[in-house]
Amino acid sequence: VADPRVYLNGRIVPLADAAISPLDIGLLRGYAVFDLLRTVGGRPFLLAEHLQRLRASAERLGLEVPASDEDISAAIDELLALNGHEEATVRLVLTGGVSPDGMDFDPATPTFLILTHDLHEPPPSLYEVGGALLTERHQREMPEAKTTNYLTMLGNRERIADAGALDLLYHDGERVLEAASASVYFVRDGRIFAVPGDVLWGTVGSLVLELAGGDYEVVLGEMSLAEALDADEVFLTSTTRGVVPIVRLDNRAVGDGAPGPVTRELMARWRRALECARG
Amino acid sequence: VADPRVYLNGRIVPLADAAISPLDIGLLRGYAVFDLLRTVGGRPFLLAEHLQRLRASAERLGLEVPASDEDISAAIDELLALNGHEEATVRLVLTGGVSPDGMDFDPATPTFLILTHDLHEPPPSLYEVGGALLTERHQREMPEAKTTNYLTMLGNRERIADAGALDLLYHDGERVLEAASASVYFVRDGRIFAVPGDVLWGTVGSLVLELAGGDYEVVLGEMSLAEALDADEVFLTSTTRGVVPIVRLDNRAVGDGAPGPVTRELMARWRRALECARG
Repeated sequence: VADPRVYLNGRIVPLADAAISPLDIGLLRGYAVFDLLRTVGGRPFLLAEHLQRLRASAERLGLEVPASDEDISAAIDELLALNGHEEATVRLVLTGGVSPDGMDFDPATPTFLILTHDLHEPPPSLYEVGGALLTERHQREMPEAKTTNYLTMLGNRERIADAGALDLLYHDGERVLEAASASVYFVRDGRIFAVPGDVLWGTVGSLVLELAGGDYEVVLGEMSLAEALDADEVFLTSTTRGVVPIVRLDNRAVGDGAPGPVTRELMARWRRALECARG
Repeated sequence: VADPRVYLNGRIVPLADAAISPLDIGLLRGYAVFDLLRTVGGRPFLLAEHLQRLRASAERLGLEVPASDEDISAAIDELLALNGHEEATVRLVLTGGVSPDGMDFDPATPTFLILTHDLHEPPPSLYEVGGALLTERHQREMPEAKTTNYLTMLGNRERIADAGALDLLYHDGERVLEAASASVYFVRDGRIFAVPGDVLWGTVGSLVLELAGGDYEVVLGEMSLAEALDADEVFLTSTTRGVVPIVRLDNRAVGDGAPGPVTRELMARWRRALECARG
């Protein structure tokens, strides 16, 4: 719609009337967390998981989400009804609130914002051909929280685009970590390896590992960058992209350079899960 | 004044009318830089240096400050005249601008904001007794740019307050770097040591080293955390605090636990420089 509505601190208002103060600590000091979910069949998907993660991110920063799950769910439903997306992403943003001196703030008066966007899914060819990641030495600050800090990712956006890559694969010089905007998993000898810590908990990734359960051994363990570069298969998971085969890390092919059998099976299971949710 | 004015994208407006879009990439992804200067005698102090640093920070993020030095200087003068501070800090904030999808943005349409606040200087006792820093393993992302990312500092604000400390002293496990909101210098055997890289260029620090010149040897070189903890004297420099003796690092006294002779001499020179600027 031409004039979308947003939720700001308990009220639903036109976007043009949703004024964030220039003194918001989320703007002046980047002190903010967020989460992003998608709809399936027009209804929020994995809402409970995303709200749980948002509350965990907030707690890591000493903030508290100033609304109940029920109130948030009702606000999302109202926004989706007003904004008329076919399918949507829903962004929940929580900051420390207004800071009169640009440094101090009161966690009791946060800024809580909910925005909706049209969902843009990657082209089907991505799932057939696979995508690329660029390795980058970086560990996110407070990696267990989904903060708004995307400096390293956005600072590399031209390099990512020039390489035709999807995202950065962060590592700390020894261990591989996560992508800038996705979880990453590795397949070696038929086993699926997941990084156990210093990364964001992935909502889609967790469900995918559940869907894999029984048929594939899932190993929670640290993986060196060298082992990651030598994996048989690599895939990423994200809210908007689902399960995506990664067939290139920097200039090296992963496996034989095409989506592997484990990734293809998990993509199929993920699609079936979305179909079920669609009803 | 009750209704302060701010500068936003070329216009001077009441703070209450200065609306930042909920889609600003500075809010949604922390993609923003800033700088902070102070007035002396009501006039901007080290303005050219702060604008030079702001432009360098912007360039590091692929952004451009959308105003000339002359226009910025005129806007600051107008804000200072309208807002009636005795002495002020002036905050310049530049973001990548509005992002319709929460990820892409056009550097040609940034958000540029100028705010003024009353200057709050530390109590005189701080300069007589000295202050404390808490060491923290952390290196700022894009350390040569003054980004708005203060996650680690603000996430530690209770720990800092509980310890009665001024700030965090960042190190990377080997080398000492900078404080979260200040430059830090070390005195050993009468020589002043400055960290040469991976830190923000300090406007006050640079002037203090100039004022020290001739009488003290200034060494640009990396310093281990162990050497830093063993320094004879430590001091920080910052826009709002000037030169501050650091007499405690975590629970260890620096030197004999009181401001040392080199620091006291540099504090005196700094005060004379401010007096000269006051005219």
